[in-house]
Amino acid sequence: MNSEAKCDKFTAINELARRRGYFWQSYEIYGGVSGFVTYGPLGAKLKQNIEAKLRELFVTKLGLLEIESSVITPGKVFEASGHVNHFKEPMVECLACNKRFRADHLLEEYAKQSCVETEKMSLKQIQKALEAHGIMCPECGGGFKPPQQFLTMFQTTIGPYSNATGYGRPEAAQGIFVEFNRLYAMAREKLPFGVIQIGHALRNEISPRQGLIRLREFTIADLEFFFDPEEPNCCLLKDVENETLRIYLAPERKACSEKIVEVTVKEAVAKQIIRSEWQAFFMAMAKKLLIEIGVPAENQRFIEKLPWEKAHYATQCFDQEVYVDRWGWIEVSGHAYRTDYDLDCHTKASGADLRVFKEYPEPIEQEQLVVKPVKAKLGPAFKGEAKKVAELLSNAPAEEVAASLEKDGYYMAENHKVLPEHVEVTHEKTVIRGKRFIPHVVEPSFGSDRLFYVALEYAYNVKDDRVVMGFPRAIAPTQLGVYPLVSKDGIDKKAREVHQQLLNEGFTAELDETGSIGRRYARADEAGVPLGITVDYDTLHDNSVTVRDRDSWRQVRTPIKSLPELLHKYFQGKLNFEDLGT
Amino acid sequence: MNSEAKCDKFTAINELARRRGYFWQSYEIYGGVSGFVTYGPLGAKLKQNIEAKLRELFVTKLGLLEIESSVITPGKVFEASGHVNHFKEPMVECLACNKRFRADHLLEEYAKQSCVETEKMSLKQIQKALEAHGIMCPECGGGFKPPQQFLTMFQTTIGPYSNATGYGRPEAAQGIFVEFNRLYAMAREKLPFGVIQIGHALRNEISPRQGLIRLREFTIADLEFFFDPEEPNCCLLKDVENETLRIYLAPERKACSEKIVEVTVKEAVAKQIIRSEWQAFFMAMAKKLLIEIGVPAENQRFIEKLPWEKAHYATQCFDQEVYVDRWGWIEVSGHAYRTDYDLDCHTKASGADLRVFKEYPEPIEQEQLVVKPVKAKLGPAFKGEAKKVAELLSNAPAEEVAASLEKDGYYMAENHKVLPEHVEVTHEKTVIRGKRFIPHVVEPSFGSDRLFYVALEYAYNVKDDRVVMGFPRAIAPTQLGVYPLVSKDGIDKKAREVHQQLLNEGFTAELDETGSIGRRYARADEAGVPLGITVDYDTLHDNSVTVRDRDSWRQVRTPIKSLPELLHKYFQGKLNFEDLGT
Repeated sequence: MNSEAKCDKFTAINELARRRGYFWQSYEIYGGVSGFVTYGPLGAKLKQNIEAKLRELFVTKLGLLEIESSVITPGKVFEASGHVNHFKEPMVECLACNKRFRADHLLEEYAKQSCVETEKMSLKQIQKALEAHGIMCPECGGGFKPPQQFLTMFQTTIGPYSNATGYGRPEAAQGIFVEFNRLYAMAREKLPFGVIQIGHALRNEISPRQGLIRLREFTIADLEFFFDPEEPNCCLLKDVENETLRIYLAPERKACSEKIVEVTVKEAVAKQIIRSEWQAFFMAMAKKLLIEIGVPAENQRFIEKLPWEKAHYATQCFDQEVYVDRWGWIEVSGHAYRTDYDLDCHTKASGADLRVFKEYPEPIEQEQLVVKPVKAKLGPAFKGEAKKVAELLSNAPAEEVAASLEKDGYYMAENHKVLPEHVEVTHEKTVIRGKRFIPHVVEPSFGSDRLFYVALEYAYNVKDDRVVMGFPRAIAPTQLGVYPLVSKDGIDKKAREVHQQLLNEGFTAELDETGSIGRRYARADEAGVPLGITVDYDTLHDNSVTVRDRDSWRQVRTPIKSLPELLHKYFQGKLNFEDLGT
Repeated sequence: MNSEAKCDKFTAINELARRRGYFWQSYEIYGGVSGFVTYGPLGAKLKQNIEAKLRELFVTKLGLLEIESSVITPGKVFEASGHVNHFKEPMVECLACNKRFRADHLLEEYAKQSCVETEKMSLKQIQKALEAHGIMCPECGGGFKPPQQFLTMFQTTIGPYSNATGYGRPEAAQGIFVEFNRLYAMAREKLPFGVIQIGHALRNEISPRQGLIRLREFTIADLEFFFDPEEPNCCLLKDVENETLRIYLAPERKACSEKIVEVTVKEAVAKQIIRSEWQAFFMAMAKKLLIEIGVPAENQRFIEKLPWEKAHYATQCFDQEVYVDRWGWIEVSGHAYRTDYDLDCHTKASGADLRVFKEYPEPIEQEQLVVKPVKAKLGPAFKGEAKKVAELLSNAPAEEVAASLEKDGYYMAENHKVLPEHVEVTHEKTVIRGKRFIPHVVEPSFGSDRLFYVALEYAYNVKDDRVVMGFPRAIAPTQLGVYPLVSKDGIDKKAREVHQQLLNEGFTAELDETGSIGRRYARADEAGVPLGITVDYDTLHDNSVTVRDRDSWRQVRTPIKSLPELLHKYFQGKLNFEDLGT
């Protein structure tokens, strides 16, 4: 962080956020703890509104199912999912002061290596690179012990037995996968269907330092969309097919070219740039979401992850990125084609059958080789062991038994020699109605805190030396400010009435009676309140108020009795400010 | 749990909940883990609606501040708050099979002792009682090791250093207290004000077995209301003063009487039954909330906690209870008068000043004794030590110095003998503008999962052998069902249009095309969908639909174009079903 960074947007936003209560580092009175933030009143509401927007697009309009499960998760789940083995970061410890650091971040900061390079390095390679660049402890200048892998999940114990390991979930996705059978039943056993979970998640970062961008506790919105890999077509693709996507492709990234391709969803799918139609659909939806929270299309892009950058469960993977002032392009959502990886892992680890049944359009007749024990011959031949031999024969693959009898003239069922006369080998016709298979999954996964941060940064404007937070009206934490021009002559009482009336209509409205009217407008602009309603002396005579626009600072005059309907339509996006009065 | 319990409401609701996706025990494919539930699509939405109701009452209408902070909390916070010392339960371990149990629960189950009795027992007393009643291990019949205290917080480590202990928060309240100074600034440094936090919390129960009633991970809504103990009057009391409260008082409970007093809020405050006006106000609001989610007043009561039952931070404390079929009276919210306990703890532990400044109406002039070192005399007398002596004199209480000079003729500043000539003792007038003090706190604290459970139980009705979930319309998970009478002749297409139109209007609406219309109605009744909209052959001619009431099963006919406005008013509670058509 160089010195001019001090007056960048990141700093200005963090200062505003602390002062006005959008967010701040938690536990300040105990010196603060990195990686934890508290959302204040304005921030909590803004964050809720962003999450409501996400729900509106994916749950209400697309009809996806939403669930809520626990943050603390039994160890078995993350052992099965591969997280216990893979969810690690390289760490070094200083020999002198024993401070610990993320080794790849040291290389990025002091050796200017890109994360594309560091992500594929082994511990040995990291050690060599640290030595080659002469990187020492940033705290005391000491040398480092050899790097080791650090498990970045929070670990705990569930209940009173110390062997019942639990982890804080690093993603909400597993809470969906482990409940697949129930959720499939709730989707009435039909593919495709999608399930979303929005909730807190935990990653025990080694030394997080980027404010809202890298948190130890954060809110994730994981959407798992299940489909039949033999019917991968997206029935909703036509709704978004002409939407353009800006994509930074893997080959360009490998070649260190800066070239971004701009393609329509239709082209991206036709040219196999995006290999899953559903993934392409959700990427278009993600672009739409970001536009709705205030990030213009030209400040968004998708980057295709390189093979060694991808999560352990993903085949093709894209990150949606947004350009921010301090950090450049940062990830706000990930789009992974997880195939059948997770359901397959949980099937193997739990023994539960997580496959779905697919009926064939027409039942298929199949001829099948069958080996039937001839009981009348087995009894005399094997006596007390006859039943066991019959069982062994039933469980053995028919092809194997038949081949052995053909080739050797006998088949060994454990230590029992079965002869051709003991069995009947026939071909039988069976009717197969369908087959069982594990659905495939595409996953759009949003970081709510990062959506929040980019919404703040793109709302941040300075006008006449004052900060105006220009949130899109649908996500503004407070919809309306109500201001008595003066606190006397019945104007204050009238303002309180108007305020109460707006609350009863379900608006979020704040009454502000202190300070000059100009100062109150300035306060409201910092809070991003789209409309200000001022009660003045005229109001007492004509029952009308002044409505002020946050962005243009223009004002119109409106009768109080028209306010509710006009304002509802304004916040539904059906009216513009100009339509609110004269 | 006796055998007839098998067909009680608890069992019926749990069965329905699993089948229809309200909730179920999580991680079933791994054998399930006690104390964790997953809310399915219907449940997640119902829970969100209950929490939205809570927000409407407390955040939107009362203007309280809402925040969101982390579940994982540094150890220091819960050391300071007293939780590390007090948040424990007695546990015994079987000598034979090493299974562990909650000792007080064993006494309650096998010796029929009440929790009123067991809560005040020491470990020694518990041990004696277990022995006296001959209680053995319920699993294997073995004896027990002596009971010990088990810390019921989930413990973990924050970051890469093993000494950085963190806990999963057992309450959301501390996330508010530690940020008091910032929140007070956001309340523009005025008392009273309140802050609410709704979020996940964790209690590592020893062996939870009551479904939603006792969870290891749950959602808590903690509301901390800060006020000046010298101005304890509640300015909103008049809004609720005639509301009646049913209270089971501590003296009656001690005398084992079953008597419930029924008093108005006004009386409860006047008679000092409830010692804080704000607490009385929030108890009335809590009653209102429960009514709005479907629990009639007569099935609610408040019980006053006995001294040994209260949390370590509380003076007067009431639990709001609701009667449920299986468990009798269960707590749904706690109302504790926490005084200045928590802010005082954090002031002492952190060194931060969490007091607020209160200006006196008139500044107070005070005469103050002042001892001023006379530098010209100190220098010659104490040489190099003169500066230190001057400092010691400045820091010593003036009264003490003056008294010593008066009585002994000198004052010992450490080992320096200060004589009257070295100092000037005068009286000075100072103006004191106000004073600093720690605000008091009343806390209503709601368990969201228990609110959810009682909403389910009070919605549960059986009509003609069918389950009808009669949720109040404001919290119903799905507002509208849309049904094509048949899936042909353009009726299905028309139904899809109506469905889309309702979604665009912001309603939660489900389109159900499969099965007979009767079966679809039955399915919707189990999901508690208040209104069903059926598209039939007449619709194709007259553009009207049938609207069906979940509770009365009555139907009216309404033009499609009137639906949005009528339905908005219906769900705002401004219209009844009869007003929706003819």
